[in-house]
Amino acid sequence: MSVFEKKHEYPGKLFIVEGVDGSGKSTQIDLLKKWLESEGYSVFFTEWNSSELVKETTREAKKKNLLTPTTFSLLHATDFADRLHYQIIPPLKAGMIVLADRYAYTAFARDVVRGVSPQWVRNLYSFAVKPDISFYFDVPIQIACERILSNRTEIKFHEAGMDLGLSSDTRESFKIFQGRIMDQYKAMVDEFNLTSVDATLEIHEQQNSVREKVKEALKGYAKKRTIYAKRAKVFWRKFTIS
Amino acid sequence: MSVFEKKHEYPGKLFIVEGVDGSGKSTQIDLLKKWLESEGYSVFFTEWNSSELVKETTREAKKKNLLTPTTFSLLHATDFADRLHYQIIPPLKAGMIVLADRYAYTAFARDVVRGVSPQWVRNLYSFAVKPDISFYFDVPIQIACERILSNRTEIKFHEAGMDLGLSSDTRESFKIFQGRIMDQYKAMVDEFNLTSVDATLEIHEQQNSVREKVKEALKGYAKKRTIYAKRAKVFWRKFTIS
Repeated sequence: MSVFEKKHEYPGKLFIVEGVDGSGKSTQIDLLKKWLESEGYSVFFTEWNSSELVKETTREAKKKNLLTPTTFSLLHATDFADRLHYQIIPPLKAGMIVLADRYAYTAFARDVVRGVSPQWVRNLYSFAVKPDISFYFDVPIQIACERILSNRTEIKFHEAGMDLGLSSDTRESFKIFQGRIMDQYKAMVDEFNLTSVDATLEIHEQQNSVREKVKEALKGYAKKRTIYAKRAKVFWRKFTIS
Repeated sequence: MSVFEKKHEYPGKLFIVEGVDGSGKSTQIDLLKKWLESEGYSVFFTEWNSSELVKETTREAKKKNLLTPTTFSLLHATDFADRLHYQIIPPLKAGMIVLADRYAYTAFARDVVRGVSPQWVRNLYSFAVKPDISFYFDVPIQIACERILSNRTEIKFHEAGMDLGLSSDTRESFKIFQGRIMDQYKAMVDEFNLTSVDATLEIHEQQNSVREKVKEALKGYAKKRTIYAKRAKVFWRKFTIS
Protein backbone atom coordinates (compact mmCIF):
# COMPACT_ATOMS: atom_id res chain seq x y z
CA MET A 1 0.00 0.00 0.00
CA SER A 2 2.39 2.65 -1.17
CA VAL A 3 0.06 5.41 -2.29
CA PHE A 4 0.27 8.92 -0.90
CA GLU A 5 3.66 8.53 0.71
CA LYS A 6 5.25 11.53 -0.95
CA LYS A 7 4.37 15.14 -0.21
CA HIS A 8 3.47 17.26 -3.22
CA GLU A 9 5.80 20.05 -4.28
CA TYR A 10 3.29 22.66 -5.39
CA PRO A 11 3.37 26.06 -3.72
CA GLY A 12 -0.31 25.76 -2.73
CA LYS A 13 -1.91 23.76 0.06
CA LEU A 14 -4.48 20.96 -0.09
CA PHE A 15 -6.83 20.31 2.83
CA ILE A 16 -9.51 17.67 2.58
CA VAL A 17 -12.31 16.32 4.80
CA GLU A 18 -13.54 12.76 5.08
CA GLY A 19 -16.13 10.91 7.11
CA VAL A 20 -19.44 9.10 6.82
CA ASP A 21 -22.59 10.96 5.80
CA GLY A 22 -23.82 12.86 8.83
CA SER A 23 -20.36 13.32 10.34
CA GLY A 24 -20.63 17.09 9.85
CA LYS A 25 -17.56 17.36 7.60
CA SER A 26 -19.28 19.52 4.96
CA THR A 27 -20.31 22.06 7.60
CA GLN A 28 -16.74 22.18 8.88
CA ILE A 29 -15.09 22.63 5.49
CA ASP A 30 -17.57 25.35 4.66
CA LEU A 31 -16.71 27.21 7.88
CA LEU A 32 -13.00 26.70 7.17
CA LYS A 33 -13.43 28.15 3.68
CA LYS A 34 -15.18 31.27 4.97
CA TRP A 35 -12.55 31.79 7.64
CA LEU A 36 -9.62 31.38 5.22
CA GLU A 37 -11.22 33.83 2.79
CA SER A 38 -11.81 36.33 5.57
CA GLU A 39 -8.10 35.99 6.40
CA GLY A 40 -7.28 37.00 2.83
CA TYR A 41 -6.35 33.62 1.38
CA SER A 42 -7.30 32.56 -2.14
CA VAL A 43 -9.35 29.42 -1.74
CA PHE A 44 -10.68 26.94 -4.28
CA PHE A 45 -13.36 24.42 -3.28
CA THR A 46 -14.13 21.12 -5.00
CA GLU A 47 -16.35 18.19 -4.09
CA TRP A 48 -16.65 14.48 -4.79
CA ASN A 49 -18.27 13.24 -7.98
CA SER A 50 -18.89 16.65 -9.49
CA SER A 51 -16.91 16.64 -12.74
CA GLU A 52 -19.02 17.54 -15.75
CA LEU A 53 -17.21 14.85 -17.72
CA VAL A 54 -18.92 11.80 -16.26
CA LYS A 55 -21.69 13.35 -14.15
CA GLU A 56 -24.45 12.51 -16.60
CA THR A 57 -23.13 8.98 -17.22
CA THR A 58 -22.92 8.24 -13.49
CA ARG A 59 -26.40 9.59 -12.90
CA GLU A 60 -27.92 7.57 -15.73
CA ALA A 61 -26.10 4.39 -14.78
CA LYS A 62 -27.06 4.74 -11.11
CA LYS A 63 -30.69 5.19 -12.11
CA LYS A 64 -30.65 1.87 -13.93
CA ASN A 65 -28.59 0.15 -11.21
CA LEU A 66 -26.50 -1.31 -14.01
CA LEU A 67 -23.08 -0.75 -12.50
CA THR A 68 -20.81 -3.45 -11.15
CA PRO A 69 -18.53 -2.45 -8.24
CA THR A 70 -15.56 -2.24 -10.61
CA THR A 71 -17.34 -0.04 -13.15
CA PHE A 72 -18.70 2.12 -10.35
CA SER A 73 -15.21 2.53 -8.94
CA LEU A 74 -13.73 3.35 -12.36
CA LEU A 75 -16.38 5.99 -13.06
CA HIS A 76 -15.59 7.72 -9.77
CA ALA A 77 -11.87 7.52 -10.48
CA THR A 78 -12.46 9.08 -13.90
CA ASP A 79 -14.37 11.91 -12.26
CA PHE A 80 -11.56 12.34 -9.75
CA ALA A 81 -8.80 12.31 -12.41
CA ASP A 82 -10.64 14.98 -14.36
CA ARG A 83 -11.13 17.18 -11.30
CA LEU A 84 -7.57 16.62 -10.13
CA HIS A 85 -6.21 17.85 -13.42
CA TYR A 86 -8.55 20.77 -13.98
CA GLN A 87 -9.64 21.83 -10.50
CA ILE A 88 -7.05 20.71 -7.97
CA ILE A 89 -3.59 20.87 -9.54
CA PRO A 90 -3.90 24.24 -11.35
CA PRO A 91 -4.80 26.20 -8.17
CA LEU A 92 -2.09 24.31 -6.24
CA LYS A 93 0.41 25.33 -8.90
CA ALA A 94 -0.84 28.88 -8.61
CA GLY A 95 -0.15 28.77 -4.87
CA MET A 96 -3.80 28.73 -3.79
CA ILE A 97 -5.45 26.79 -1.00
CA VAL A 98 -7.60 23.94 -2.29
CA LEU A 99 -10.33 22.49 -0.09
CA ALA A 100 -11.90 19.18 -1.07
CA ASP A 101 -15.07 17.69 0.39
CA ARG A 102 -14.16 14.00 0.15
CA TYR A 103 -11.03 12.67 -1.53
CA ALA A 104 -9.64 9.31 -2.67
CA TYR A 105 -10.26 7.89 0.84
CA THR A 106 -13.98 7.97 0.07
CA ALA A 107 -13.35 5.52 -2.76
CA PHE A 108 -11.09 3.39 -0.55
CA ALA A 109 -13.94 3.12 1.96
CA ARG A 110 -17.00 2.78 -0.27
CA ASP A 111 -15.57 0.72 -3.10
CA VAL A 112 -14.01 -1.80 -0.74
CA VAL A 113 -17.35 -2.19 1.06
CA ARG A 114 -18.87 -2.85 -2.38
CA GLY A 115 -16.38 -5.68 -2.86
CA VAL A 116 -13.51 -4.13 -4.79
CA SER A 117 -9.96 -5.15 -3.79
CA PRO A 118 -8.33 -2.68 -1.32
CA GLN A 119 -5.01 -2.98 -3.13
CA TRP A 120 -6.55 -2.44 -6.56
CA VAL A 121 -8.47 0.71 -5.63
CA ARG A 122 -5.43 2.20 -3.84
CA ASN A 123 -3.34 1.65 -6.93
CA LEU A 124 -6.14 3.11 -9.04
CA TYR A 125 -5.74 6.47 -7.26
CA SER A 126 -1.95 6.41 -7.10
CA PHE A 127 -1.87 9.37 -9.52
CA ALA A 128 -3.47 11.57 -6.85
CA VAL A 129 -1.72 14.25 -4.82
CA LYS A 130 -1.24 13.66 -1.10
CA PRO A 131 -3.21 16.27 0.88
CA ASP A 132 -1.37 18.50 3.35
CA ILE A 133 -4.00 17.60 5.92
CA SER A 134 -6.72 14.95 5.65
CA PHE A 135 -9.30 15.53 8.37
CA TYR A 136 -11.38 12.56 9.43
CA PHE A 137 -14.58 13.40 11.30
CA ASP A 138 -15.04 10.67 13.82
CA VAL A 139 -18.57 10.17 15.09
CA PRO A 140 -20.43 7.17 16.53
CA ILE A 141 -22.43 5.47 13.80
CA GLN A 142 -25.72 5.92 15.70
CA ILE A 143 -25.31 9.70 15.81
CA ALA A 144 -24.37 9.92 12.12
CA CYS A 145 -27.34 7.79 11.09
CA GLU A 146 -29.75 9.72 13.32
CA ARG A 147 -28.58 13.02 11.82
CA ILE A 148 -29.26 11.77 8.31
CA LEU A 149 -32.38 9.73 8.95
CA SER A 150 -34.13 12.40 11.03
CA ASN A 151 -33.43 15.22 8.59
CA ARG A 152 -34.20 13.51 5.34
CA THR A 153 -37.42 12.10 4.01
CA GLU A 154 -35.65 10.03 1.40
CA ILE A 155 -32.35 8.13 1.29
CA LYS A 156 -31.15 7.47 -2.23
CA PHE A 157 -30.68 3.93 -3.48
CA HIS A 158 -26.87 3.94 -3.71
CA GLU A 159 -26.43 6.15 -0.68
CA ALA A 160 -28.17 3.46 1.33
CA GLY A 161 -26.04 0.77 -0.30
CA MET A 162 -29.21 -0.91 -1.56
CA ASP A 163 -27.18 -2.32 -4.47
CA LEU A 164 -25.46 -4.59 -1.93
CA GLY A 165 -28.68 -6.32 -0.92
CA LEU A 166 -27.98 -5.80 2.79
CA SER A 167 -31.64 -5.27 3.65
CA SER A 168 -34.86 -4.64 1.80
CA ASP A 169 -35.50 -1.72 4.17
CA THR A 170 -33.71 1.42 2.96
CA ARG A 171 -33.07 2.84 6.43
CA GLU A 172 -31.83 -0.49 7.75
CA SER A 173 -29.59 -0.93 4.71
CA PHE A 174 -28.26 2.62 5.18
CA LYS A 175 -27.24 1.85 8.77
CA ILE A 176 -25.44 -1.38 7.88
CA PHE A 177 -23.75 0.22 4.87
CA GLN A 178 -22.59 3.29 6.82
CA GLY A 179 -21.29 1.05 9.60
CA ARG A 180 -19.14 -0.89 7.16
CA ILE A 181 -17.83 2.31 5.59
CA MET A 182 -16.93 3.57 9.05
CA ASP A 183 -14.92 0.40 9.70
CA GLN A 184 -12.91 1.15 6.58
CA TYR A 185 -12.32 4.75 7.68
CA LYS A 186 -11.19 3.67 11.13
CA ALA A 187 -8.57 1.39 9.61
CA MET A 188 -7.39 4.20 7.33
CA VAL A 189 -6.68 6.66 10.17
CA ASP A 190 -3.41 4.84 10.84
CA GLU A 191 -2.75 3.66 7.30
CA PHE A 192 -2.83 7.18 5.86
CA ASN A 193 -2.16 9.20 8.97
CA LEU A 194 -5.53 10.96 8.85
CA THR A 195 -6.12 13.80 11.34
CA SER A 196 -9.04 12.71 13.52
CA VAL A 197 -11.53 15.29 14.72
CA ASP A 198 -14.01 14.40 17.48
CA ALA A 199 -17.24 15.07 15.60
CA THR A 200 -19.39 14.77 18.72
CA LEU A 201 -18.08 18.14 19.96
CA GLU A 202 -19.89 21.43 19.36
CA ILE A 203 -19.52 22.83 15.86
CA HIS A 204 -17.36 25.76 16.99
CA GLU A 205 -15.12 23.51 19.08
CA GLN A 206 -14.48 21.26 16.09
CA GLN A 207 -13.85 24.31 13.92
CA ASN A 208 -11.31 25.69 16.39
CA SER A 209 -9.44 22.42 16.34
CA VAL A 210 -9.50 22.37 12.52
CA ARG A 211 -8.24 25.96 12.31
CA GLU A 212 -5.38 25.24 14.71
CA LYS A 213 -4.17 22.39 12.52
CA VAL A 214 -4.55 24.48 9.37
CA LYS A 215 -2.68 27.43 10.92
CA GLU A 216 0.14 25.08 11.77
CA ALA A 217 0.28 23.81 8.18
CA LEU A 218 0.24 27.35 6.83
CA LYS A 219 3.35 28.43 8.73
CA GLY A 220 5.82 29.78 6.20
CA TYR A 221 3.15 29.84 3.51
CA ALA A 222 2.87 33.23 1.81
CA LYS A 223 -0.62 34.54 1.36
CA LYS A 224 -1.33 34.48 -2.33
CA ARG A 225 -3.19 37.46 -3.65
CA THR A 226 -4.92 36.67 -6.87
CA ILE A 227 -4.69 38.97 -9.89
CA TYR A 228 -8.37 39.55 -9.44
CA ALA A 229 -7.89 40.74 -5.85
CA LYS A 230 -5.07 43.10 -6.89
CA ARG A 231 -7.13 44.57 -9.69
CA ALA A 232 -10.12 45.06 -7.47
CA LYS A 233 -7.93 47.02 -5.07
CA VAL A 234 -6.47 49.21 -7.81
CA PHE A 235 -9.91 49.86 -9.15
CA TRP A 236 -11.09 50.91 -5.71
CA ARG A 237 -8.17 53.32 -5.24
CA LYS A 238 -8.75 54.92 -8.63
CA PHE A 239 -12.37 55.22 -7.92
CA THR A 240 -11.84 57.05 -4.62
CA ILE A 241 -9.31 59.45 -6.16
CA SER A 242 -11.32 60.46 -9.21
CA MET B 1 3.45 -7.34 -13.58
CA SER B 2 1.29 -10.11 -12.33
CA VAL B 3 -1.86 -9.65 -14.39
CA PHE B 4 -3.37 -12.36 -16.53
CA GLU B 5 -1.40 -15.20 -14.99
CA LYS B 6 -4.36 -17.35 -14.14
CA LYS B 7 -6.57 -19.12 -16.70
CA HIS B 8 -10.28 -18.47 -16.38
CA GLU B 9 -12.57 -21.30 -15.30
CA TYR B 10 -15.63 -20.57 -17.42
CA PRO B 11 -16.88 -23.28 -19.76
CA GLY B 12 -16.63 -20.90 -22.76
CA LYS B 13 -13.59 -19.78 -24.73
CA LEU B 14 -12.18 -16.28 -25.25
CA PHE B 15 -10.13 -15.47 -28.34
CA ILE B 16 -8.91 -11.93 -28.95
CA VAL B 17 -6.93 -10.11 -31.64
CA GLU B 18 -4.44 -7.29 -31.20
CA GLY B 19 -2.19 -5.23 -33.43
CA VAL B 20 -1.70 -1.73 -34.78
CA ASP B 21 -4.28 -0.16 -37.10
CA GLY B 22 -3.76 -1.64 -40.54
CA SER B 23 -2.43 -4.97 -39.24
CA GLY B 24 -5.46 -6.76 -40.69
CA LYS B 25 -6.65 -8.13 -37.33
CA SER B 26 -10.30 -7.11 -37.84
CA THR B 27 -10.48 -8.93 -41.17
CA GLN B 28 -9.04 -12.03 -39.54
CA ILE B 29 -11.39 -12.07 -36.55
CA ASP B 30 -14.34 -11.56 -38.88
CA LEU B 31 -13.27 -14.56 -40.97
CA LEU B 32 -12.76 -16.58 -37.80
CA LYS B 33 -16.25 -15.67 -36.59
CA LYS B 34 -17.87 -16.78 -39.86
CA TRP B 35 -15.94 -20.02 -39.86
CA LEU B 36 -16.80 -20.85 -36.23
CA GLU B 37 -20.47 -20.14 -36.88
CA SER B 38 -20.45 -22.32 -39.99
CA GLU B 39 -18.98 -25.08 -37.80
CA GLY B 40 -21.99 -24.77 -35.51
CA TYR B 41 -20.45 -22.87 -32.61
CA SER B 42 -22.28 -20.13 -30.71
CA VAL B 43 -20.15 -17.03 -31.07
CA PHE B 44 -20.35 -13.63 -29.43
CA PHE B 45 -18.37 -10.71 -30.84
CA THR B 46 -17.34 -7.55 -28.99
CA GLU B 47 -15.05 -4.68 -29.86
CA TRP B 48 -12.96 -2.02 -28.12
CA ASN B 49 -14.56 1.14 -26.80
CA SER B 50 -18.11 0.23 -27.73
CA SER B 51 -19.98 0.19 -24.41
CA GLU B 52 -23.04 2.41 -24.42
CA LEU B 53 -22.18 3.49 -20.89
CA VAL B 54 -19.33 5.87 -21.69
CA LYS B 55 -19.47 6.05 -25.50
CA GLU B 56 -21.02 9.50 -25.57
CA THR B 57 -18.72 10.86 -22.86
CA THR B 58 -15.61 9.60 -24.64
CA ARG B 59 -16.78 11.03 -27.95
CA GLU B 60 -17.56 14.43 -26.46
CA ALA B 61 -14.33 14.60 -24.47
CA LYS B 62 -12.25 13.56 -27.48
CA LYS B 63 -13.88 16.27 -29.55
CA LYS B 64 -12.78 18.89 -27.08
CA ASN B 65 -9.33 17.31 -26.59
CA LEU B 66 -9.84 17.83 -22.87
CA LEU B 67 -8.61 14.48 -21.64
CA THR B 68 -5.38 13.88 -19.79
CA PRO B 69 -3.70 10.50 -20.39
CA THR B 70 -4.95 9.25 -17.00
CA THR B 71 -8.56 10.29 -17.60
CA PHE B 72 -8.40 8.85 -21.12
CA SER B 73 -7.10 5.58 -19.71
CA LEU B 74 -9.77 5.46 -16.98
CA LEU B 75 -12.58 6.10 -19.46
CA HIS B 76 -11.42 3.20 -21.62
CA ALA B 77 -11.09 0.98 -18.55
CA THR B 78 -14.64 1.90 -17.54
CA ASP B 79 -15.86 0.94 -21.00
CA PHE B 80 -13.94 -2.32 -20.75
CA ALA B 81 -15.25 -3.15 -17.25
CA ASP B 82 -18.79 -2.60 -18.46
CA ARG B 83 -18.35 -4.79 -21.53
CA LEU B 84 -16.51 -7.46 -19.55
CA HIS B 85 -19.39 -7.77 -17.14
CA TYR B 86 -22.25 -7.58 -19.61
CA GLN B 87 -20.83 -8.87 -22.89
CA ILE B 88 -17.84 -11.08 -22.17
CA ILE B 89 -18.42 -12.97 -18.92
CA PRO B 90 -22.10 -13.95 -19.42
CA PRO B 91 -21.48 -15.75 -22.76
CA LEU B 92 -18.34 -17.36 -21.30
CA LYS B 93 -20.42 -18.62 -18.38
CA ALA B 94 -22.98 -19.91 -20.88
CA GLY B 95 -20.22 -21.88 -22.60
CA MET B 96 -20.10 -19.72 -25.75
CA ILE B 97 -17.09 -18.59 -27.75
CA VAL B 98 -16.33 -14.90 -27.28
CA LEU B 99 -14.29 -13.05 -29.89
CA ALA B 100 -12.89 -9.62 -29.02
CA ASP B 101 -11.41 -7.13 -31.46
CA ARG B 102 -8.79 -5.55 -29.15
CA TYR B 103 -8.45 -6.30 -25.45
CA ALA B 104 -6.61 -4.85 -22.45
CA TYR B 105 -3.33 -5.03 -24.40
CA THR B 106 -4.56 -2.14 -26.52
CA ALA B 107 -4.67 -0.01 -23.38
CA PHE B 108 -1.25 -1.28 -22.29
CA ALA B 109 0.16 -0.16 -25.65
CA ARG B 110 -1.67 3.12 -26.27
CA ASP B 111 -1.90 4.46 -22.73
CA VAL B 112 1.78 3.85 -22.04
CA VAL B 113 2.70 5.68 -25.26
CA ARG B 114 0.53 8.55 -23.97
CA GLY B 115 2.65 8.64 -20.80
CA VAL B 116 0.75 6.50 -18.31
CA SER B 117 2.78 4.18 -16.06
CA PRO B 118 3.02 0.60 -17.45
CA GLN B 119 2.58 -0.84 -13.95
CA TRP B 120 -0.42 1.36 -13.17
CA VAL B 121 -2.36 0.51 -16.33
CA ARG B 122 -1.65 -3.22 -15.93
CA ASN B 123 -3.01 -3.11 -12.41
CA LEU B 124 -5.99 -1.12 -13.67
CA TYR B 125 -7.05 -4.07 -15.85
CA SER B 126 -6.24 -6.78 -13.31
CA PHE B 127 -9.97 -7.55 -13.01
CA ALA B 128 -9.98 -8.79 -16.62
CA VAL B 129 -10.17 -12.40 -17.74
CA LYS B 130 -7.13 -13.95 -19.40
CA PRO B 131 -7.97 -14.88 -23.01
CA ASP B 132 -7.52 -18.47 -24.15
CA ILE B 133 -5.58 -17.16 -27.14
CA SER B 134 -4.39 -13.61 -27.76
CA PHE B 135 -3.39 -13.23 -31.39
CA TYR B 136 -0.93 -10.49 -32.23
CA PHE B 137 -0.82 -9.49 -35.90
CA ASP B 138 2.76 -8.63 -36.61
CA VAL B 139 3.36 -6.38 -39.60
CA PRO B 140 6.14 -3.92 -40.51
CA ILE B 141 5.12 -0.41 -39.53
CA GLN B 142 5.51 0.86 -43.12
CA ILE B 143 3.00 -1.65 -44.46
CA ALA B 144 0.48 -0.91 -41.68
CA CYS B 145 0.76 2.84 -42.24
CA GLU B 146 0.47 2.51 -46.02
CA ARG B 147 -2.67 0.40 -45.67
CA ILE B 148 -4.32 3.03 -43.51
CA LEU B 149 -2.99 6.15 -45.20
CA SER B 150 -3.75 4.99 -48.75
CA ASN B 151 -7.30 3.87 -47.96
CA ARG B 152 -8.44 6.75 -45.84
CA THR B 153 -8.94 10.37 -46.68
CA GLU B 154 -8.93 11.43 -43.05
CA ILE B 155 -7.09 10.23 -39.95
CA LYS B 156 -8.82 11.18 -36.72
CA PHE B 157 -7.09 13.41 -34.19
CA HIS B 158 -6.57 10.81 -31.44
CA GLU B 159 -6.00 7.97 -33.89
CA ALA B 160 -3.02 9.94 -35.17
CA GLY B 161 -1.87 10.64 -31.61
CA MET B 162 -2.10 14.37 -32.35
CA ASP B 163 -2.73 14.95 -28.63
CA LEU B 164 0.91 14.00 -28.05
CA GLY B 165 2.26 16.87 -30.15
CA LEU B 166 4.55 14.55 -32.12
CA SER B 167 4.12 16.48 -35.36
CA SER B 168 1.82 19.14 -36.71
CA ASP B 169 1.28 16.93 -39.77
CA THR B 170 -1.45 14.36 -39.11
CA ARG B 171 0.04 11.68 -41.34
CA GLU B 172 3.51 12.16 -39.91
CA SER B 173 2.13 12.08 -36.36
CA PHE B 174 0.19 8.91 -37.19
CA LYS B 175 3.37 7.15 -38.34
CA ILE B 176 5.37 8.10 -35.24
CA PHE B 177 2.47 7.23 -32.92
CA GLN B 178 1.84 3.84 -34.56
CA GLY B 179 5.56 3.08 -34.42
CA ARG B 180 5.64 3.68 -30.67
CA ILE B 181 2.54 1.56 -30.15
CA MET B 182 4.16 -1.22 -32.13
CA ASP B 183 7.21 -1.09 -29.86
CA GLN B 184 4.92 -1.66 -26.89
CA TYR B 185 3.22 -4.60 -28.61
CA LYS B 186 6.54 -6.19 -29.49
CA ALA B 187 7.58 -6.10 -25.83
CA MET B 188 4.25 -7.62 -24.80
CA VAL B 189 4.57 -10.70 -27.03
CA ASP B 190 6.91 -12.24 -24.45
CA GLU B 191 5.44 -10.57 -21.38
CA PHE B 192 1.95 -11.96 -22.02
CA ASN B 193 2.80 -14.89 -24.25
CA LEU B 194 0.85 -13.47 -27.22
CA THR B 195 0.45 -15.69 -30.27
CA SER B 196 2.19 -13.93 -33.16
CA VAL B 197 0.76 -14.14 -36.64
CA ASP B 198 2.83 -13.01 -39.64
CA ALA B 199 0.49 -10.34 -40.99
CA THR B 200 2.46 -9.93 -44.23
CA LEU B 201 1.16 -13.31 -45.44
CA GLU B 202 -1.89 -13.68 -47.69
CA ILE B 203 -5.22 -13.32 -45.89
CA HIS B 204 -6.14 -17.02 -46.30
CA GLU B 205 -2.71 -18.14 -45.10
CA GLN B 206 -3.06 -16.06 -41.92
CA GLN B 207 -6.59 -17.38 -41.45
CA ASN B 208 -5.41 -21.00 -41.78
CA SER B 209 -2.82 -20.40 -39.11
CA VAL B 210 -5.41 -18.75 -36.83
CA ARG B 211 -7.87 -21.62 -37.31
CA GLU B 212 -5.21 -24.21 -36.50
CA LYS B 213 -4.49 -22.53 -33.19
CA VAL B 214 -8.19 -22.17 -32.40
CA LYS B 215 -8.89 -25.82 -33.27
CA GLU B 216 -6.14 -26.81 -30.89
CA ALA B 217 -7.68 -24.69 -28.11
CA LEU B 218 -11.12 -26.16 -28.78
CA LYS B 219 -10.03 -29.76 -28.24
CA GLY B 220 -12.29 -31.24 -25.60
CA TYR B 221 -14.66 -28.29 -25.84
CA ALA B 222 -18.27 -29.31 -26.41
CA LYS B 223 -20.11 -27.41 -29.10
CA LYS B 224 -22.77 -25.35 -27.41
CA ARG B 225 -26.06 -25.20 -29.23
CA THR B 226 -28.10 -22.20 -28.25
CA ILE B 227 -31.80 -22.44 -27.55
CA TYR B 228 -32.27 -20.24 -30.58
CA ALA B 229 -30.48 -22.69 -32.89
CA LYS B 230 -32.56 -25.59 -31.60
CA ARG B 231 -35.80 -23.69 -32.10
CA ALA B 232 -34.86 -22.63 -35.61
CA LYS B 233 -34.31 -26.27 -36.52
CA VAL B 234 -37.64 -27.38 -35.13
CA PHE B 235 -39.37 -24.60 -36.98
CA TRP B 236 -37.77 -25.68 -40.22
CA ARG B 237 -38.89 -29.27 -39.78
CA LYS B 238 -42.44 -28.25 -39.08
CA PHE B 239 -42.44 -25.96 -42.03
CA THR B 240 -41.33 -28.69 -44.45
CA ILE B 241 -43.85 -31.18 -43.11
CA SER B 242 -46.88 -28.93 -43.25
